[in-house]
Amino acid sequence: MASTESWPSPPRPRSGEIRRDDVFGRCVLFSPARSRRPSDFKSRSPASSSSNPNSKPFCAFCAGHESECAPEIFRFPAGSLDDWKIRVIENLYPALSRDAEHSPSTADGPDAVMPGKYSLTGFGFHDVVIETPDHSVRLPDLSPEEIAQVLLAHKQRILQLACLESIKYVQVFKNYGASAGASMAHSHSQIVGLPLVPPLVSTRLDSMKKFYDMTGKCSLCEVLSNDLLVAETVHYFAIVPFAASYAFEVWIVPRGHTVHFHEIDHEKVMLLGLYVNSTLNCIGTSLERLIVVKTRSIVSRKWTAVDLGGLLKVVLQKLSKQLNDPPYNFMIQAAPPDLPSSCAPSVHWFLQIVPHLSVTGGFEIGTGCFINPVFPEDAAKVLREVDGSR
Amino acid sequence: MASTESWPSPPRPRSGEIRRDDVFGRCVLFSPARSRRPSDFKSRSPASSSSNPNSKPFCAFCAGHESECAPEIFRFPAGSLDDWKIRVIENLYPALSRDAEHSPSTADGPDAVMPGKYSLTGFGFHDVVIETPDHSVRLPDLSPEEIAQVLLAHKQRILQLACLESIKYVQVFKNYGASAGASMAHSHSQIVGLPLVPPLVSTRLDSMKKFYDMTGKCSLCEVLSNDLLVAETVHYFAIVPFAASYAFEVWIVPRGHTVHFHEIDHEKVMLLGLYVNSTLNCIGTSLERLIVVKTRSIVSRKWTAVDLGGLLKVVLQKLSKQLNDPPYNFMIQAAPPDLPSSCAPSVHWFLQIVPHLSVTGGFEIGTGCFINPVFPEDAAKVLREVDGSR
Repeated sequence: MASTESWPSPPRPRSGEIRRDDVFGRCVLFSPARSRRPSDFKSRSPASSSSNPNSKPFCAFCAGHESECAPEIFRFPAGSLDDWKIRVIENLYPALSRDAEHSPSTADGPDAVMPGKYSLTGFGFHDVVIETPDHSVRLPDLSPEEIAQVLLAHKQRILQLACLESIKYVQVFKNYGASAGASMAHSHSQIVGLPLVPPLVSTRLDSMKKFYDMTGKCSLCEVLSNDLLVAETVHYFAIVPFAASYAFEVWIVPRGHTVHFHEIDHEKVMLLGLYVNSTLNCIGTSLERLIVVKTRSIVSRKWTAVDLGGLLKVVLQKLSKQLNDPPYNFMIQAAPPDLPSSCAPSVHWFLQIVPHLSVTGGFEIGTGCFINPVFPEDAAKVLREVDGSR
Repeated sequence: MASTESWPSPPRPRSGEIRRDDVFGRCVLFSPARSRRPSDFKSRSPASSSSNPNSKPFCAFCAGHESECAPEIFRFPAGSLDDWKIRVIENLYPALSRDAEHSPSTADGPDAVMPGKYSLTGFGFHDVVIETPDHSVRLPDLSPEEIAQVLLAHKQRILQLACLESIKYVQVFKNYGASAGASMAHSHSQIVGLPLVPPLVSTRLDSMKKFYDMTGKCSLCEVLSNDLLVAETVHYFAIVPFAASYAFEVWIVPRGHTVHFHEIDHEKVMLLGLYVNSTLNCIGTSLERLIVVKTRSIVSRKWTAVDLGGLLKVVLQKLSKQLNDPPYNFMIQAAPPDLPSSCAPSVHWFLQIVPHLSVTGGFEIGTGCFINPVFPEDAAKVLREVDGSR
């Protein structure tokens, strides 16, 4: 962990602001009066120390305990035996059931019918991606290529679910640490296939469309600025967004306009050393940025998954170092598989990482507005200034 | 605390459902597979035992420490000295600042301007209602009349803020317990005056309007049913809503169609014994329901605040007994002060109570859909079956 001495001096006193998030279409209150220094936000309960009732040495997700799990869907490498690296399995306690009858009316979405006490069957899919056979390994402990394989497992399962007429949206997410919702300590992520497009996804698509209609530009193609940058690679950049809802929230965004997460390339490459680490700001715009620019022109898109895996590793390590191994969630903010082509110019997928550093209270539940005590520019500076490469 | 023996037998196995909430316009996944018994939801960290860094014996909110607080706005009784019962003060760490310049463009709301990196000044009001001078007293420990005075303090401050042209919405809320966002253990609630109508409020008003346009009825006038009822009084009822987002969420709703919370009557009455307690279901539809019906016809609306105070006390005591003193939030889900009269038929205020029994994870953050493992009918039964009167 970084010592407190590594923190920058307290940010200059500044007054609050209300910022609008053009991607989610919501307002965020920035309230620096509610914190004195960014160090106020170090996690007081690091995820690794949480007393998780399921964090026993031999859990069902560990290698050798496969028979204690719900059925497997696929594994990587395909055909591996005891030497599997990743397993995608059914969730033993699913939020939705693949065995339930599919309500035909969901085809038009639940908004299409009369109001009242309206319900559908709980049809859907809820799967788990076991990211490593080893109980003690966290996601950022894996190599960029291994993280890429996890992301490619997400892609593979999304493509399987997207083939089903009944599935309208696939949500990939990870809960790390008990207070971020993880019920198992063993490193895993989850995939839910839903029979409807969820409300927040609709709102996000509408908001991005509105931005496009008013400006002629994609909101995420326009989002990068130097003061918000955390780290970057050839194909992706990581920023604290201008109107971050949560303190130290980070978005990893493809540089090129890309509608679907599942467009990341499936090829594996060994050029791991090429991913650019996190100290861009320490050396200004010089050498590493030059590497980024020059490399972009000569490297094909084949290794986007490894590129993304490397950047995700860097960002998670930065958050862990600067914020005392905080619990976090990440969500792949994707597009519905059958997005109309007319929406393609405005929709751009991204990976949202949210450390759990404070509590959602009555104000947020009542209004849907978030209060963020750390300005994104200050959070980005704190994250830039620590080495995330190891 | 109720012993586990007081719990009903586990609910019958049932399959999951997706229900639509017509008030908030969102879907909720009901997933009974994720819990075995309602007792799985007893709070593992009761709010009263939380190690709150500010729960020192002599806190700034205690009587005798008034000089350590931010400026007072008013107190009850007006003109009282050391014998005050309630103080409304400025928040020492406000989310919005009353001293900031008001951005004129907020008059049209932030949605009215071009997208981009758009921000407003952090103008607004953030006040605290100290609900009792005594550090050891919780809100439900107060009498119905004392709770009514707290609600009337909310009303009084709402009316003051609603007079300001710059304030477009007033959010009243309470965070109880550190994990529900309370930074002070001393019983208090909060009031935020905002220069805009927040997104969730707009969505709620739109959703209720849509229900009205399709059915000709107010969604909350139609919401009561016997299987969802928790408790009731002459002027209010408490239910677990049909599509509750959170396990054991309770709404207290005025029986008659009422747009604004601040319409509750200011008169104090001494008829405290008339509020009807919580054991309705134990005695079926008989004596107490008769009292409700008969009393409604003879008692004026003068004492609605005390009636509401009594019901809030009952509901909070039921939640505390059945769920092991859980942290909770309550929010007054109100209408903007200058709601157009054309919206009046569809808008109906209510008080939403949300116990914190599980964690919001990546699925909820990503989709805006909630997963609730307890069916509202089962939660209502659990809450009906415990005495909330003491």
